Amino acid sequence: MEETKYEHSLVFAVRDYECDLQGVVNNANYQHYLEHARHEFLISRGISFSHLHDEGLDLIVTRIEIDYKYPLRSHDKFVVRSTILREGNVRLVFVQDIFRLPDEKLVVKARVTGAATKNGRPVHPGDIIKRLGLG
Amino acid sequence: MEETKYEHSLVFAVRDYECDLQGVVNNANYQHYLEHARHEFLISRGISFSHLHDEGLDLIVTRIEIDYKYPLRSHDKFVVRSTILREGNVRLVFVQDIFRLPDEKLVVKARVTGAATKNGRPVHPGDIIKRLGLG
Amino acid sequence: MEETKYEHSLVFAVRDYECDLQGVVNNANYQHYLEHARHEFLISRGISFSHLHDEGLDLIVTRIEIDYKYPLRSHDKFVVRSTILREGNVRLVFVQDIFRLPDEKLVVKARVTGAATKNGRPVHPGDIIKRLGLG
Amino acid sequence: MEETKYEHSLVFAVRDYECDLQGVVNNANYQHYLEHARHEFLISRGISFSHLHDEGLDLIVTRIEIDYKYPLRSHDKFVVRSTILREGNVRLVFVQDIFRLPDEKLVVKARVTGAATKNGRPVHPGDIIKRLGLG
Repeated sequence: MEETKYEHSLVFAVRDYECDLQGVVNNANYQHYLEHARHEFLISRGISFSHLHDEGLDLIVTRIEIDYKYPLRSHDKFVVRSTILREGNVRLVFVQDIFRLPDEKLVVKARVTGAATKNGRPVHPGDIIKRLGLG
Repeated sequence: MEETKYEHSLVFAVRDYECDLQGVVNNANYQHYLEHARHEFLISRGISFSHLHDEGLDLIVTRIEIDYKYPLRSHDKFVVRSTILREGNVRLVFVQDIFRLPDEKLVVKARVTGAATKNGRPVHPGDIIKRLGLG
Repeated sequence: MEETKYEHSLVFAVRDYECDLQGVVNNANYQHYLEHARHEFLISRGISFSHLHDEGLDLIVTRIEIDYKYPLRSHDKFVVRSTILREGNVRLVFVQDIFRLPDEKLVVKARVTGAATKNGRPVHPGDIIKRLGLG
Repeated sequence: MEETKYEHSLVFAVRDYECDLQGVVNNANYQHYLEHARHEFLISRGISFSHLHDEGLDLIVTRIEIDYKYPLRSHDKFVVRSTILREGNVRLVFVQDIFRLPDEKLVVKARVTGAATKNGRPVHPGDIIKRLGLG
C-alpha cells in the first residue's frame, strides 16, 4: 500500500457529549471531525466555506466512504490528516485519516468526494482548484 | 401551583444517538427537543422560522431556564407541551414541559424567553404577536 | 439496476437544528437518521441495541458508504427504507435509502456494514442472524 | 456587579456544523461547550466524569440558566471561563461565561446547578467537594 502524503493536520480532543451509550464516539461524529478538518484545510488555503456560501457558491459532499477501524473514547486525543486530489474535471476527493494520539493507532479511513454548486447547480470548481494548487 | 394550560403538544421518541455515556439523553438534546417543538408550534400558527429568516427577521432566544427532573433513556417516548406568553412589549416567553409517555412522569420544566431581530437588531414582534393571538 | 426490496420503513421530519448554514441538513445528520432507522428495524425484530450492550454484545459499524443525491431542507418530510443482507460469515450489510415525501425524490443511498463484538472482540452474530431470518 | 473570579478557562473555535440556518451557533451547542468546559475543569482537579460513571457515581445537572448575549459565528474563537460554588449541603453551582476572542465580547452567561447521584439516587458529593477545595 502506497503511503498517503497528507497536506493538512488538525488535532482534536474527544468531548464527552460525542460519546454514546456504548461508551465510544458515535459514528456520525467522525463525519463532524472530518468536515471541520476539511474546512480548516480550505481556510489554510484561503478558501472560506461560509464566505463562498454568501457568494452563492457551495462546496458539497456527493459521496462519503468511511472505514471504522478502532473507536475513540472519552479523553482521547486524535489527529485528522487530510489531502486532496482532483478526480475528472469537476470532482475533488479528500483523503482523510484519523489517528489516536500519541500512539498513532488508526481510527478511521475516509474518502470524501466533493463538487461545487452555484445556486444549487453543479459548476466547475475552477478558482477553488487553482487555490488548492490542483490546476 | 397553578396548572399550565398548554396550547401545543408534540410527541417524540428518544433516538439512541441522543444518549450519552451515562446511558441517558444528553442534557443539550432537551434543548433540541424544545426548539423543534417551538418551531412546530409556530408553524401551526402559520409562522415559519426559516421563511422569517429569509425575510431578514429572526426569532432569537435570549434566555433559557431548564429544570431537569428525570432523565429520558433509550426507547422512551415523550411529549413536549408548550404555551406562549407575552412579557413586556417585545419579549415572548415559551413555557415548555416534557413528560415521559405513557406514564406522564415529569422530565423537564423549561422557560424560554425570545425576542425578534431584523438584520441583527431588536424589533417589535408585532406581526408575530398578532398571529399568535397575543395582541 | 435491480430494485431493492426493503423490509423496514421509518418516516421522519427534518428538524431545523439539523440544518446548517447552507440551509440544508448537515451531512452527518443523515448518519443519525440511518442509525435510528437501523435500531428501529432491529427492535421490530426483537433486537434491542441498548439491551445487547448491557449484555456485553455490541453491534458496530465497520464501514459506511453514503451517496448524497439531493439535500433535505427545513420542513421536509422523508422516509428511510432499509433491508439487511448477510455478507460472508460474520458481516451484516444494511442497504438504506432515503426518499423525500411525498414526491419520492431520492435523497441518499447508503450501504452500512456491521459486525458483532463481545467485550470489544469480534464474534459471530449467530443469534442476531437467526432473529433477522438470515440464518 | 461584583466581578467573577474564574478558576478555569478553555479556548474553543466554532465548527461550521455547529451553526444553523440562521448562520450562527445553534443555542443547544452552547450547552455542549459549557459541558465540555466543566468536564475539563473537573479533570484538571483529578475528577474524571467517565471514571466516576464506571464507579456508579454520576454528576448530574439539575438546572441550567443561560443568558444569550451575542451570537457566535463561523470562524469565531472563544473562551469558556468557569468557577464553582457550593450551594447548601448537596448542590454544586458552576458559574460559566463565554467570551468571544480576541475582543472579549460577552456571548453567554450561564449558571449550572449539579448534584451527585449513585445508582440513580442523590448522594452527598463529599469526595468531589474535597477535591474541588470546597470542603
